[in-house]
Amino acid sequence: MLHTKAISNILSALLLFLALSLIAPAIFAYINNEGDFSAFLTTIGFSFSIGIIVFLLTRNHNEELRAKDGFIIVTLGWLLFSFIGALPFYLSGFIPSYTDAFFETMSGFSTTGATILTDIEILPHGLLFWRSLTHWLGGMGIILLSLAILPLLGVGGMQLFKAEVPGPSPDKLTPRIKHTAELLWGVYLLLTVVEVILLRFGGMDWFDSVCHSFGTLATGGFSTKNASIGFYNSAYVDYVITLFMILAGLNFSLHYRALKGKPLIYFKDPESLFFFGIIIVATLAIFFSVWTQTSADFALSFRQAFFQVVSIITTTGYGTADYEQWSSMSRMILLILMFFGGCAGSTGGGLKIIRSLILIKFSLNEIKRLIHPQAVLPVRIGKIVVQRDIITNVAGFYLFYVTLFVFGVLFMNVLGLDIETALGGVAATIGNIGPALGDLGPTDNYSFIPDVGKWFMSFLMLVGRLEIYTVLVIFTPIFWKK
Amino acid sequence: MLHTKAISNILSALLLFLALSLIAPAIFAYINNEGDFSAFLTTIGFSFSIGIIVFLLTRNHNEELRAKDGFIIVTLGWLLFSFIGALPFYLSGFIPSYTDAFFETMSGFSTTGATILTDIEILPHGLLFWRSLTHWLGGMGIILLSLAILPLLGVGGMQLFKAEVPGPSPDKLTPRIKHTAELLWGVYLLLTVVEVILLRFGGMDWFDSVCHSFGTLATGGFSTKNASIGFYNSAYVDYVITLFMILAGLNFSLHYRALKGKPLIYFKDPESLFFFGIIIVATLAIFFSVWTQTSADFALSFRQAFFQVVSIITTTGYGTADYEQWSSMSRMILLILMFFGGCAGSTGGGLKIIRSLILIKFSLNEIKRLIHPQAVLPVRIGKIVVQRDIITNVAGFYLFYVTLFVFGVLFMNVLGLDIETALGGVAATIGNIGPALGDLGPTDNYSFIPDVGKWFMSFLMLVGRLEIYTVLVIFTPIFWKK
Repeated sequence: MLHTKAISNILSALLLFLALSLIAPAIFAYINNEGDFSAFLTTIGFSFSIGIIVFLLTRNHNEELRAKDGFIIVTLGWLLFSFIGALPFYLSGFIPSYTDAFFETMSGFSTTGATILTDIEILPHGLLFWRSLTHWLGGMGIILLSLAILPLLGVGGMQLFKAEVPGPSPDKLTPRIKHTAELLWGVYLLLTVVEVILLRFGGMDWFDSVCHSFGTLATGGFSTKNASIGFYNSAYVDYVITLFMILAGLNFSLHYRALKGKPLIYFKDPESLFFFGIIIVATLAIFFSVWTQTSADFALSFRQAFFQVVSIITTTGYGTADYEQWSSMSRMILLILMFFGGCAGSTGGGLKIIRSLILIKFSLNEIKRLIHPQAVLPVRIGKIVVQRDIITNVAGFYLFYVTLFVFGVLFMNVLGLDIETALGGVAATIGNIGPALGDLGPTDNYSFIPDVGKWFMSFLMLVGRLEIYTVLVIFTPIFWKK
Repeated sequence: MLHTKAISNILSALLLFLALSLIAPAIFAYINNEGDFSAFLTTIGFSFSIGIIVFLLTRNHNEELRAKDGFIIVTLGWLLFSFIGALPFYLSGFIPSYTDAFFETMSGFSTTGATILTDIEILPHGLLFWRSLTHWLGGMGIILLSLAILPLLGVGGMQLFKAEVPGPSPDKLTPRIKHTAELLWGVYLLLTVVEVILLRFGGMDWFDSVCHSFGTLATGGFSTKNASIGFYNSAYVDYVITLFMILAGLNFSLHYRALKGKPLIYFKDPESLFFFGIIIVATLAIFFSVWTQTSADFALSFRQAFFQVVSIITTTGYGTADYEQWSSMSRMILLILMFFGGCAGSTGGGLKIIRSLILIKFSLNEIKRLIHPQAVLPVRIGKIVVQRDIITNVAGFYLFYVTLFVFGVLFMNVLGLDIETALGGVAATIGNIGPALGDLGPTDNYSFIPDVGKWFMSFLMLVGRLEIYTVLVIFTPIFWKK
């Protein structure tokens, strides 16, 4: 069965880490004195005391973690962070409904960026900082998960990256995960710091620079402004954030290798190239449509099309234009981009570029097989031959994603959302994007969704973020068999 | 390369068959004298003269047909029938646009049943009969295709049925196809005759009984009445047609075996059972929704829900109620049913039940593999273990279907259709259903679609009907290589 002692030990350590993470926003709350300090203090106390007690009780165990335990830790870890991380919003009274607070926090930790807030700017600085920090911490978790844990668990084709990830021999699970995490978190931190400086240089104040950098690198999307990035109305800010959204949507192990002296590695990586290709094609199509439709400025049309395309495909969700006003075609393209998502090993959500690439090549092979039934046609990504097992795993992932999407649209539709809103809203939560279509466009928010819908969408954010399999496996009878 | 002589020979034989098929509607046209007789005569003459010349020129060939030739014959055959079969509508002036006439005829031969006619009842009897006959001939073609040709070509998992199909040894292609076709066409004809008699018995006149039976057994959906089956407002007629739609949505080789003395074979067949299960669940859900929503009669609500569910899932498209007035949930369920479609080896379109069944079982196995990575987990359908090759072939089919669907929705959206209409219209043409959602609901028609959209949707009907691979393979470079 499960190794409950080892699991509890790790989860309690995570609680201590959560308490630690709350200190920074608590300091902001204390300095600004806007009525949210005590809520932070209570949450820190709660998280710390439970954490320390359980940690001490479970410290002495000699259980080795296995795959099963991994699935439970990851899923419960994300849930725990969201349940407790919601308390500052709830206890301070700034988000009076716990359902809303939980939705907002899950949206943060899952790097989705869907909000239930109508007016973001009335939030105190402590809560604003915490809200953006949940993204950044979620992004850290995702890097760890997608490049160090999931490849070892064999989830959704991520095994492909086993060999690529920097680190010592793959025999020892824990030291390997630790080493990989340290290296990649270093890259993550570095990119965040660079973006903060660049944004500050562009006239954004320190606080907003930090918050927006958190939201960018995690492909989150929470802003400190109601008008999101559109608030700044600055080509410089737009292009800086566009650049860093692209970086956040690329595989972080490529960044690591680029920093190690191979800056052109992105252009040798088939996944990155395909990602760039989609961005270019979608940007040009939407740019052309926006430019001709609104008779807007050439440069502005391009900037807005580029920003929105990158924001959606990387699953960030920042906005500089209300794309609900764009042509139906542009909106449909954005809806399709929601499914592609970022590259594997990025902080982006969605199906991931590599999976689409594998499935496209696989499908073309299936056609070729009709003509040459005996031919052996391997699927190649760059120089790597993708094994049959990985292909079926990816195909299974895709099937679950589509099934969950269809079921989700049906469910939200039953709750009263019109079809466009339901399509967009479900795609945007399962894909961890944030803003969607229809009544959930970039100028709207999720507050009007009925409570049961908010819990359901929180579930979609979690399942989408954890690559579906990680959560679904827990619901199978075979998981609970000895 | 292709065996052009052998291909031309078969296509010319098909033209002769087409000329022959036009004689019956021509007789109706002559008797009723409603202005369409000369159009039939011209078409027969045209089809016969080209057919006989090419047939005689290509009679002496000793080319053996191979898979490649098969794909070309099937695709060109359907196209040829639609291009020439459209002439009576066009030449008679009753459908003044050739685009419309082609759309209507492709809709007929592909057993879709989508119409561009606003008023069906003003059509002369000759054309009405021809319109329904295109369905019935299309259904004959599909039975031949799905149970005798595609299993041998290895398209979309249909290889599964190689063993099941009645016929002599699988070595000789032509005699085997011929024998299988004769047996199953016998079943098809028998069921049609029985339905005609039952409908006549219920008070429908002979002409309409025949036309509606043609549309039922082919899962087509063209009616002779503007109000479709709703015109008769009869529980007896509704239930008879519901029953025969279900029969048309089942594998015809099962009917053959049932008639051979195994009437309970349907209940031992996993595909049929799953098909029944979906019908029951969807009917109950929609019935409950309709009943509570409209405070309608209990029996009537059930009858309407049952009829519409069966009509959509079997991809027939007859109507007895305007489901556009039903709840959003009911419409979403119908949209989902459009994808399931009938059983393999039926005349129904869509993804086919067996494929969904294989993919569901396959996906569940992928989850199990996370826990037991070494375990060998075969996908079983009944007693048969589905081979890996077939699973990937089915997964590829599903990917192409979804991709084509998404691309189609995007394209129709660009042409100006709103999202619900585009979703429904593309699902209903690629799945060969007919009536869709939004502006293409059961009381609407396809006349308002721009011409380029009508050609595109005709293409979708063809590609969907020919199991996608059959058409797509022709567009690959490898097909044209020596």
